[in-house]
Amino acid sequence: MAKEIPKILKGFRDYLPQQQLARKKVITKISEVFERFGFSPLDTPALEYYELLGGKYGEEGEQLMYKFEDQGGRKVALRYDLTVPLARVFATYPDLPKPFKRYQIANVWRADKPQKGRYRELIQCDVDIIGTDSIIADAEVIAAMAAAYKTLEVGTFLVKFNDRKLVDSVLTKLKVSKEDIVSFMRTVDKLDKIGERKVQETLLQQGFEKDILSKYSKLMDDSSKKYVEEMQNLLSGLGVEQMMFDKYLMRGLDYYTGVVFEFVLLEKPEFGSVGGGGRYDNLIEQTTGMATPAVGGSIGLDRLLAALEELDVISPQTAAEVIVFNLDKNLTPEYLNILTNLRNAGLDAEFYYEPAKLDKQFKYAEAKNTQVAVIMGSNEAKKRKVNLKNLKEKQQITVDLDDLITEVKSMLW
Amino acid sequence: MAKEIPKILKGFRDYLPQQQLARKKVITKISEVFERFGFSPLDTPALEYYELLGGKYGEEGEQLMYKFEDQGGRKVALRYDLTVPLARVFATYPDLPKPFKRYQIANVWRADKPQKGRYRELIQCDVDIIGTDSIIADAEVIAAMAAAYKTLEVGTFLVKFNDRKLVDSVLTKLKVSKEDIVSFMRTVDKLDKIGERKVQETLLQQGFEKDILSKYSKLMDDSSKKYVEEMQNLLSGLGVEQMMFDKYLMRGLDYYTGVVFEFVLLEKPEFGSVGGGGRYDNLIEQTTGMATPAVGGSIGLDRLLAALEELDVISPQTAAEVIVFNLDKNLTPEYLNILTNLRNAGLDAEFYYEPAKLDKQFKYAEAKNTQVAVIMGSNEAKKRKVNLKNLKEKQQITVDLDDLITEVKSMLW
Repeated sequence: MAKEIPKILKGFRDYLPQQQLARKKVITKISEVFERFGFSPLDTPALEYYELLGGKYGEEGEQLMYKFEDQGGRKVALRYDLTVPLARVFATYPDLPKPFKRYQIANVWRADKPQKGRYRELIQCDVDIIGTDSIIADAEVIAAMAAAYKTLEVGTFLVKFNDRKLVDSVLTKLKVSKEDIVSFMRTVDKLDKIGERKVQETLLQQGFEKDILSKYSKLMDDSSKKYVEEMQNLLSGLGVEQMMFDKYLMRGLDYYTGVVFEFVLLEKPEFGSVGGGGRYDNLIEQTTGMATPAVGGSIGLDRLLAALEELDVISPQTAAEVIVFNLDKNLTPEYLNILTNLRNAGLDAEFYYEPAKLDKQFKYAEAKNTQVAVIMGSNEAKKRKVNLKNLKEKQQITVDLDDLITEVKSMLW
Repeated sequence: MAKEIPKILKGFRDYLPQQQLARKKVITKISEVFERFGFSPLDTPALEYYELLGGKYGEEGEQLMYKFEDQGGRKVALRYDLTVPLARVFATYPDLPKPFKRYQIANVWRADKPQKGRYRELIQCDVDIIGTDSIIADAEVIAAMAAAYKTLEVGTFLVKFNDRKLVDSVLTKLKVSKEDIVSFMRTVDKLDKIGERKVQETLLQQGFEKDILSKYSKLMDDSSKKYVEEMQNLLSGLGVEQMMFDKYLMRGLDYYTGVVFEFVLLEKPEFGSVGGGGRYDNLIEQTTGMATPAVGGSIGLDRLLAALEELDVISPQTAAEVIVFNLDKNLTPEYLNILTNLRNAGLDAEFYYEPAKLDKQFKYAEAKNTQVAVIMGSNEAKKRKVNLKNLKEKQQITVDLDDLITEVKSMLW
């Protein structure tokens, strides 16, 4: 009796070859851009002490974190983001050159409720600069991410930014207390989702003055001019094309202390934010006891890939460029020789292992999206000839075995 | 009071920029070779149902596997290798082109006793071919791995191979029972480690005839000739340079059913096997209920990297090629312009964010192994000139700002 096929865990995904090839390409491009901006790669363990991660991500994080006891009785957890492990790394290696500019592209795990576009294992692409409070560092993080989106051809996109310090000083001027500032920010941050009227209502319910929003708006407009101009100049200077100051952008994470920003795709606004970040000058101290300014951002790869797919930017990927068909067991040495020559010429080439019927071999090649088939029976072999079939254009030519590489290459490019 | 610096978990590692750059390079090269051999990338979740992984890796695997209950009360485990998840994938997607040739380069987790060169999180680089029992597929897996080692310049290396079917038939001819075959293989597999005398003793203790080893040796020599010749021809045809039939090679994993093989570095034999694999025609059925032949191999990246380091193949890696020094806050727009031009020309370039003392900036650049510094004060800026310092050769030239890209490139290459 057939066994039941074992299942993948809910909220997790397999990446089959075509998807994984596309994902690999995107990851490679992002890495290259981050390196172009002077960020170096870092890798950290999937597991950390729970003591490190616990209490850093609010109530939600506490619930969604995968945590357990390991064989040695240690309380451990799967990493929930790449920022807290970065803080640990920064504290562990005091000799790192400062400011420390690193990028990390790696999985994080969150036991989120599975729903469309939400997964329990997700790749984050993070850039961070630790050890400087320069506003140029803020602009560099944004610019590096913008350059990544540009390279990926996501269409026109916009970075919205705000500054928590500005928000803080404006609200303080309006005599809003420290605790109320936090609830004000949380409510206003929902403006995009729930609309202005609902925000007004919520603020009233929370005990704010009736006209707090318009007062905030006016005072922010007056207070932000110099900051906005400086940031826009820096961003333009670093190659960012479209940016917008958004006084209502707050971002959820409590730990931001300065700039906050978010990227949106103007052709796919329904995807919401495809990346964002901000300055977090207190987090490193909270984690490690070392007071250190820091700024960083993160590209959510999964949402971005979904958008790229809808934008038709991701073309079907080919695994093997060339397949050598198997027509005759006795020709195995000749086939292997062809195969090895193709590979030595830098081509991705595979062999059909059994001398099966030709249409079965064609079907296999088509399923794998292969571009060229090398077809040689004993007649051709005797004459040192070989047939090349372009599987996309369905054209076949016969060439001298000695010209094989040149001919295949001209078919591919 | 300073907090205690949070620790990394025992048996886990951080990969700081220089190490991670080296590791990334090696991974990229291995991927390229695997793709050249017609293998496509696959990715699977870090977590699987324990039901899938349990009972697949013997007693040791059971002890070393990280397992726990998730938030939904499911018994889950961190993947222990890449082979069992592959079997699940194969069963889950019946439309995959067959044979299914995939590679996967990913972490696995084992709560091993931490000791030199043993880690609890390790990267495996696997190639597998599922759905054919062709001996050419056996040879292809070996050849793909051999090509990877060659590309990585590990020095001369050798692949040792044997065939479990041969061993089985020879021992059956010698009237060894099925169970005794398993213990014979386990004991003989230790020959390299404990020597022939100790193997002889153990076999005696296990109740084998006194001359079982010499009988086995003789009969294997006679029975293996045809097989060895065929395999050697296939391997040579696929570009493998050094191979050796080793009748005592068994490999630990119980699930092998045909060819077994191992790679050793002849210049660094102390590293032992840096990779290996074999045919496992029953594992897919055991996992999924679908009888399917399969063959695969795995490169242990960590041991390989350690060997490459000792062989001095890994050179110090550079993060940023160019750094733009910060001499004057007022020149920020000019600096950003230079920076953006360098990046648009494809160079990895960074900026020193604060106008700190020059020797501090030099120190930072040297710590990061940067190659060229762009140095421009207000005097140079007025004349549209810029100083370029080659940080390796400690030479400095002054060039026109308009020639900057060309001059930097000529310094780098």
